[in-house]
Amino acid sequence: MAVRTSFPSSRPSLASDAPIGIFDSGIGGLTVAHAMAQAMPAERMLYFGDTAHMPYGDRSAELVRSYSTRIARFLVEEGCKAVVIACNSASATAKRAVQEAVGPEIPVIDVVAPVVEDLVRRGVEHVGIIGTRATIGSGIYGQSLREAHAREGLKGLRVEEWATPLLAPLIEEGWQDHELMDPVIRSYLGAAGWLDGASCALDALVLGCTHYPMAEQAVRRVVGPDVELVDGPAIVAKAVQATMADGDLMASPEYSLAHGHGFMVSDLTENFARSAHRFFGREIPLVAGGPWFMA
Amino acid sequence: MAVRTSFPSSRPSLASDAPIGIFDSGIGGLTVAHAMAQAMPAERMLYFGDTAHMPYGDRSAELVRSYSTRIARFLVEEGCKAVVIACNSASATAKRAVQEAVGPEIPVIDVVAPVVEDLVRRGVEHVGIIGTRATIGSGIYGQSLREAHAREGLKGLRVEEWATPLLAPLIEEGWQDHELMDPVIRSYLGAAGWLDGASCALDALVLGCTHYPMAEQAVRRVVGPDVELVDGPAIVAKAVQATMADGDLMASPEYSLAHGHGFMVSDLTENFARSAHRFFGREIPLVAGGPWFMA
Repeated sequence: MAVRTSFPSSRPSLASDAPIGIFDSGIGGLTVAHAMAQAMPAERMLYFGDTAHMPYGDRSAELVRSYSTRIARFLVEEGCKAVVIACNSASATAKRAVQEAVGPEIPVIDVVAPVVEDLVRRGVEHVGIIGTRATIGSGIYGQSLREAHAREGLKGLRVEEWATPLLAPLIEEGWQDHELMDPVIRSYLGAAGWLDGASCALDALVLGCTHYPMAEQAVRRVVGPDVELVDGPAIVAKAVQATMADGDLMASPEYSLAHGHGFMVSDLTENFARSAHRFFGREIPLVAGGPWFMA
Repeated sequence: MAVRTSFPSSRPSLASDAPIGIFDSGIGGLTVAHAMAQAMPAERMLYFGDTAHMPYGDRSAELVRSYSTRIARFLVEEGCKAVVIACNSASATAKRAVQEAVGPEIPVIDVVAPVVEDLVRRGVEHVGIIGTRATIGSGIYGQSLREAHAREGLKGLRVEEWATPLLAPLIEEGWQDHELMDPVIRSYLGAAGWLDGASCALDALVLGCTHYPMAEQAVRRVVGPDVELVDGPAIVAKAVQATMADGDLMASPEYSLAHGHGFMVSDLTENFARSAHRFFGREIPLVAGGPWFMA
């Protein structure tokens, strides 16, 4: 198997033509990369999936920070102009450490803050969040929402968080449309106390793991038509776009169109290669490599 | 969190009083450790669970070999007289590499060969195997069974292998008695073509992952009363015992009873600490540490 220690890309002459770095513990973050590609067709992305260490959602906060900072430094060494943490578990536990690792000049965008800002801006009151053990255990969504509500002088916020560790493995197995997907989701949301017969008590449900948008239809069937399902990847893509615009970092189409995206994983298996296109929406060439290949 | 680079044990004066090293990608191998403790109460064990890199079942063979050899060397450096690979994925892909890494003086026992020998000795003909992607993808059970049958001049063997990647996450989540466990198992075994209404076509089903014995009752409900469920951990414990006896390596009770087992993991979370007792059958003190802590 071919092993690379860097992406196959040439350095651009302009900082704004540099690629955007994006990473996840595995291939789930490709849902965010896909939304970014839709929103910013001129931008080039270098994606790193840490498939050797996935899933971050079951790991300790210390270990997730250690992995995340190493990847972020790698992406910046590869010439990236910004770093997107496309993983809720890493966003919840490693945002500050990543920003410190890459320095203040490099914008770092995570997947939690943009969703929280969006919910607060629209005044959504009764919010449920589902995610991995690491994300929910951190309490990041509840804490950020409460702080933002207090800062804006808003009232009436109710936040409830519930860990749903089986959903990511089910989606990775391709079971998002399997007949057992709905009962598993129903079991979790019922245990969280959010279901009352066929209706759901929440105003909005945050799909707080980059895998979960793949199972949006199953979640919709369980919660019914009246609950807003928060589309994390699209919101995050908009936040990245705004950050690029604010920092005068938007790519010039004539440069970027001549260069493709790069997709690298720390451990390449047939299963990852096969699954990647489901998350990104089309076939993509994964290469194995990165900062600690065969660590 | 306290971090150790070695087990808290003093070296014995006799080689036979040295501990038996045992490792798994996580805590599933504790089912094997438990069976060993039952079969050999005088033996002391040093257990290493590579929770920072679990699950091995989704990783490439190269990466599983890299992790396994590093752990095996660590266990021998800690003074172990033998190494038990208590993980089907590692047994399937890394047995030879581990033996080479620790040298010919150290017996290495894996969890596949003893089960294959037991099935062949008893002449079981129609065998199904379920396991992780790595184990099933390696084809190790089918290949070993066919070779052993040919060597013994036996006929009539039928082996079928099927990957069931969701079972380990379900068991880790504590869902082995959940109402959705049976339908998931039924879905897999049905897809494998082994179920005909309420009956199962197999003579024996190998639970080819150290997690699976935890779900034995659910598997039994799905396959009915007539299929033998192969009790891997008990068979492996007997093989370890025989190896100790053959090599004149059995511990003297008066030494070992004064020393407890050691249980180390490469990443310690509350969830692992909570789950470990389910797999070992009683509370055990996990410590974080090992050859690449915070790698």
